Amino acid sequence: MKIVDSVFGKPLATSEERGEHIGVAAGIPIFGLDALTSAAYGPEAAMTLLIPLGVAGIHYAVPVVSSILMLLVIVFFSYRQTIEAYPNGGGSYTVATENLGEKAGLLAAAALMIDYILTAAVGISAGVEAVTSALPHLAPHTLLLCLVILVLLAVINLRGVKDTGTAFILPTFLFVGTLLLVIGVGVFKSLAAGGHPVALAAMPLPMPATMKYLSLWLLLKTFSSGCAAMTGVEAVSNGVMAFREPRPRNAKLALTIIIAILIVLLLGTTYLAKTYSIMAMDPNAHDYQSLLSLLVSAVFGRGWFYFLTMGSVFLALALSANTAFADFPRLTRAIALHDFLPHVFTLRGRRLLYSHGIYALTGFTGVILILFDGITDKLIPLYAIGAFLAFTLSQAGMVVHWKKEPGNHTWHMFVNGFGAVATGITLVVVLVTKFASGAWVTALLVPSLIMIMLGVKRHYTRINHEMQDPPPLSVANLEEPLVVIPMAKWDRITEKALRFGLVISKDIKVVHVHSDDDADEGLEGVWEDKILTPLRHATMQEPELVTIISKYRFIIGPLMNYIRGLEAANPNRKITVLLPELVVRHWWENALHGQRVQLLKLLLLLRGNQRIVVVNIPWYL
Amino acid sequence: MKIVDSVFGKPLATSEERGEHIGVAAGIPIFGLDALTSAAYGPEAAMTLLIPLGVAGIHYAVPVVSSILMLLVIVFFSYRQTIEAYPNGGGSYTVATENLGEKAGLLAAAALMIDYILTAAVGISAGVEAVTSALPHLAPHTLLLCLVILVLLAVINLRGVKDTGTAFILPTFLFVGTLLLVIGVGVFKSLAAGGHPVALAAMPLPMPATMKYLSLWLLLKTFSSGCAAMTGVEAVSNGVMAFREPRPRNAKLALTIIIAILIVLLLGTTYLAKTYSIMAMDPNAHDYQSLLSLLVSAVFGRGWFYFLTMGSVFLALALSANTAFADFPRLTRAIALHDFLPHVFTLRGRRLLYSHGIYALTGFTGVILILFDGITDKLIPLYAIGAFLAFTLSQAGMVVHWKKEPGNHTWHMFVNGFGAVATGITLVVVLVTKFASGAWVTALLVPSLIMIMLGVKRHYTRINHEMQDPPPLSVANLEEPLVVIPMAKWDRITEKALRFGLVISKDIKVVHVHSDDDADEGLEGVWEDKILTPLRHATMQEPELVTIISKYRFIIGPLMNYIRGLEAANPNRKITVLLPELVVRHWWENALHGQRVQLLKLLLLLRGNQRIVVVNIPWYL
Repeated sequence: MKIVDSVFGKPLATSEERGEHIGVAAGIPIFGLDALTSAAYGPEAAMTLLIPLGVAGIHYAVPVVSSILMLLVIVFFSYRQTIEAYPNGGGSYTVATENLGEKAGLLAAAALMIDYILTAAVGISAGVEAVTSALPHLAPHTLLLCLVILVLLAVINLRGVKDTGTAFILPTFLFVGTLLLVIGVGVFKSLAAGGHPVALAAMPLPMPATMKYLSLWLLLKTFSSGCAAMTGVEAVSNGVMAFREPRPRNAKLALTIIIAILIVLLLGTTYLAKTYSIMAMDPNAHDYQSLLSLLVSAVFGRGWFYFLTMGSVFLALALSANTAFADFPRLTRAIALHDFLPHVFTLRGRRLLYSHGIYALTGFTGVILILFDGITDKLIPLYAIGAFLAFTLSQAGMVVHWKKEPGNHTWHMFVNGFGAVATGITLVVVLVTKFASGAWVTALLVPSLIMIMLGVKRHYTRINHEMQDPPPLSVANLEEPLVVIPMAKWDRITEKALRFGLVISKDIKVVHVHSDDDADEGLEGVWEDKILTPLRHATMQEPELVTIISKYRFIIGPLMNYIRGLEAANPNRKITVLLPELVVRHWWENALHGQRVQLLKLLLLLRGNQRIVVVNIPWYL
Repeated sequence: MKIVDSVFGKPLATSEERGEHIGVAAGIPIFGLDALTSAAYGPEAAMTLLIPLGVAGIHYAVPVVSSILMLLVIVFFSYRQTIEAYPNGGGSYTVATENLGEKAGLLAAAALMIDYILTAAVGISAGVEAVTSALPHLAPHTLLLCLVILVLLAVINLRGVKDTGTAFILPTFLFVGTLLLVIGVGVFKSLAAGGHPVALAAMPLPMPATMKYLSLWLLLKTFSSGCAAMTGVEAVSNGVMAFREPRPRNAKLALTIIIAILIVLLLGTTYLAKTYSIMAMDPNAHDYQSLLSLLVSAVFGRGWFYFLTMGSVFLALALSANTAFADFPRLTRAIALHDFLPHVFTLRGRRLLYSHGIYALTGFTGVILILFDGITDKLIPLYAIGAFLAFTLSQAGMVVHWKKEPGNHTWHMFVNGFGAVATGITLVVVLVTKFASGAWVTALLVPSLIMIMLGVKRHYTRINHEMQDPPPLSVANLEEPLVVIPMAKWDRITEKALRFGLVISKDIKVVHVHSDDDADEGLEGVWEDKILTPLRHATMQEPELVTIISKYRFIIGPLMNYIRGLEAANPNRKITVLLPELVVRHWWENALHGQRVQLLKLLLLLRGNQRIVVVNIPWYL
């Protein structure tokens, strides 16, 4: 068994595709981990902004979280309809392109690609940050840890959808299970204590209020911070194809379960924060703990269960980047099928998935992690925008879709339309409230990405245009090419080249560039004896020896000039350049030989034209 | 005028070589700057070790410097003889190889190469350190400044010997002139004041003595630190070829002037230190000044002349790395001529010098500067060893040389033998006293370098063996090759390849690897219509269509297997693989096309054999 097989799995035949489809249980960790783990930071992100309100902030959190939940429910119903209508995968890109046109599709595509790359980077670094805040001596290795997790995720995903699901089921259910238990027990205790339970561990007091009323601006900012909890919803609808038949039913079921759990988690944490009077702590405080950490210790105390729960939170966060890995390759494939991205994204790798999408995601995420030294807090504001832009376009597209569909779809249209309006408003809120703190970067990146995609499309269109309707084979003018053989000296390598030349043409020019140096003996000494004599004996056509004096010791330049001159002088003939090349046994041996042949090959390719063909004549030592 | 020409100078014809030869005045800066500037740090390096002796340390410096001067004079006379005996350049490598054998030569070569790379790195960083200690706000940019100077030196040297000399004459003579003036005036004042002149600026008091007597060990360490002043002597004798005729006379004159100035500078600074009672300062002291800075301000005060002198010292130090640039390429060329280094080192570039040696030196120096962040103090102990090892081998070689020479050369033998013994003892002293502080690195690097050079020699020997006595052209078995054309689909590009195949052979296999994917339509649909029909009309031989089903979607693997199978089945025929290749207009467009052709080309080259030839059929968009 080869190493590659054991790391990436054995190659799967194209016919084995059906076996790779997943069920609902595997679909939840693969597509849902991003959404589910947002329960671990969404409410805290919102409450952190309410700290200046002191104790009152806890109460304000309830309506904010409720409105986010309402939005989530609206989006849920809207996306259920999308899955039904697009059983082959209805990501925002597909839906927007088909119903709103190419431009809207590209907008969604650019927004989503950026969103996924940021999701991967932020997910990994958030997980690592959780680990390093628990084990501070690992902090100096933050970047290394991030990159290790990135590579691990890439490898797991390269093993295929099924293996990924299997690997992630346990961490996901541990995360969900422990949190649900905390909420269940916490709610029971709260009710038993008449709404005022006693925490099992010392809780920090809320900061004194520095603000009396919640301004509208702060409310909007709180709302848009909390919306980070929604970015994972898109993934399922784009990944319908990964599910086992009946696909739409399984995908819808997975989506329903994900959203249901998310709602319970969000509601539960907010309710417990309220009954236990726990406020988010200032992240810069020296004794900072996350809201979740406070809640778990309030309900269960700091026993083994606390560490089990927090450990599973850390693990799930680190793995939440997987949603990006699951969906990014499907997205880039869909875009590449429309010629807007390189076609490699449509190729299926050894495990039947679009491996190049995973490579690209890994690469970009790696670059971001390295650029930011693995600390990507500042990127969080950037990625909600991409998600909400995609949501809005997708749902607006669905409205048009239902309009075109035969039959009465008023209710469908209403659901999707309501979703579009709700996410559209949210998009505006997020964009405005976060513009200064980083959203402008997304606002710049999206159009740049669209420009690139349009450039790619132009390129493919040109090629398709040039390549369309290939003519039948033309057998006219099949004459022997003019052969050029650059020859520094006569040896076994150049003999091989000359022999090949004699096979393919009677018209051969052997070109020797004389470097005007004592070490260069020229070819005149051997030409008559070793080359012409045997040819005359066999009564074969003699090649012509061309000697070029290069007084500045340049070799490539004079050769290129000669070849181009020859080409100009023979406008109707093909020129075939034979390049004798020494192939060494070890790569380092290449340093011991001039790389002139490689350079000449490159120049002939770059400055050549349709009539120049290059032949490598390898000589193996 | 092209940019390249204005940066690197116009190319020089091989016949213009004579014009590039230099006179004595240019030879001094080119080959002597390293030796001359050592006067700026040699005495200080020795005196720093004497600090614990307090005021008494100043007096002990005199005998130490005197013994270094004696050694210098011995080496000088010894090298004069070498220049005379080797008018074509007698570096340690040449002299040791010719007289003591290959192994001794390689030892000298390895030692010198390491020495020169270290000289360049240490010279540049010492210069930059001098500048940053005067202008502390430049300190954060140390590495950048080092690399800028490195590139500048490389460019100046790539312009040729003559331009380099011209560029360096002014800084060198400014450095020598100002220092000689300081010494002259200082000596005059000392004599006028009866040996006890008054300093024109406040001088730091010597540290209180913590040690009463100078131990032998400290004496030896002081001596070997001071020997850093001698590393530049080798350069002139290796560079004789660069001088104008009469070469040996000009080279000897240059060497004499360099040594004479060096002696005056070393003696003068030591004498002034004594009469002015100036001791070297602890380099870690907060008000640290170099010995030279103290001397100049003592003699002239802190006026404009002080800044002129110190400025010229800074400049000369930074440029002292140039000695390495002048000599390293000559050294590597000499080694490469014996097949111990890649042959590129023997090629003369556009300005008639061995450019690849300059590239290599620049590269290695850059790596060292980057590794050490431009602070290479710790490297100083490393490089005296290389120099003294080379001195000893060179002079020992000269003894053997005189022995073999007809006539009576007893005096010559005595001079060189005395030099060899003196530098040999010094080598042992330096090695022992500095082993722990870094000399062990050199002791490890030298054998590794020798191993590499022996490996290179083995490689060239094998090739020379295989290539020797090239036979006359064989015209037997000149039969048409078996042509293989991998074809993904039928279009204008593959048509071009097929047309080329039809010209060179009647035996063509068109291979289509079917990736078992819906997108692959195969070639059967067009084969009959577009390919066979025209060929039948022209009554030409029909190619064979080979379709390989690849159920794992691999393309390259099945193709390689097919080609190798074909080769095994036809043991006497050549296989020619035609690779249709799309050439794009912009490099980035390559990302939009699969790189399978490149990969296949590489694999065919790596795993191929003498019977496989690869033909690139380029298609230009």
